[in-house]
Amino acid sequence: MLYAQDLAIGQRFPFGTYRMEEAEIIEFATRYDPLYIHIDPEAAAKGPFGGLIASGLHTMAVYQRLIAEAMWSKVAGIAGKRFEIDLQRPVRPGTVLTGEAEIESIAIRPERNDALMTIRAVVTDGSKPMLSLRLESLIHARPA
Amino acid sequence: MLYAQDLAIGQRFPFGTYRMEEAEIIEFATRYDPLYIHIDPEAAAKGPFGGLIASGLHTMAVYQRLIAEAMWSKVAGIAGKRFEIDLQRPVRPGTVLTGEAEIESIAIRPERNDALMTIRAVVTDGSKPMLSLRLESLIHARPA
Repeated sequence: MLYAQDLAIGQRFPFGTYRMEEAEIIEFATRYDPLYIHIDPEAAAKGPFGGLIASGLHTMAVYQRLIAEAMWSKVAGIAGKRFEIDLQRPVRPGTVLTGEAEIESIAIRPERNDALMTIRAVVTDGSKPMLSLRLESLIHARPA
Repeated sequence: MLYAQDLAIGQRFPFGTYRMEEAEIIEFATRYDPLYIHIDPEAAAKGPFGGLIASGLHTMAVYQRLIAEAMWSKVAGIAGKRFEIDLQRPVRPGTVLTGEAEIESIAIRPERNDALMTIRAVVTDGSKPMLSLRLESLIHARPA
């Protein structure tokens, strides 16, 4: 595992990819965000986006999957504390999401053997940004 | 439907309830946030929270379900633009989530026939706050 002392400001974690299938968009939104623009392709076609779009919460959940694989599988995290998330473009069925995270700051607290770390991340469709995010998280410092 | 002109600063939308079942916590996190504290009860019992906790993204998704039922089923929304989310306490299996949203500001743009609306929301376990949120969203003004 990577602890706070093993990380550097500006360090980047490139994401893998995640394809947004129409069936999963509908399944997610049926449970968590049941608006017609997310669950009813025919009604959505006549709506403000001219077709079905993913719930913003679904795109956020996929961001978490991408960063879990790219970063939290390696970095000794404790908990996410604060998220600032900008939804920049609608995510449509068939879009392949990717992106990256970059460490913005690390503040080790020796008395607690942990660190406050902020990161910035972007989720793109391979070229244009779909979602931008700033995260404040708590991570472990290296055990003494 | 309620349009921007029908809403007032300070107006509140009380949420219903949503029980966080262990099976759903594990199912959500297996797909979107596969860390052991969210998917492996035995390992999580020995971890920093002393048991399984929901992914923060899962709690956010349930917030969306609660506000979709309480507010977006009535208010003529267009899109969420920016979320600021503080995760305040771990959410454990069996917790019944509820809360409310309150309108913080509304700025009608007559030339676009829409409005920028900000809300503040809190998700609680019935007493203590679990998640606090500020949302900037775009909603419809009343059709001319």
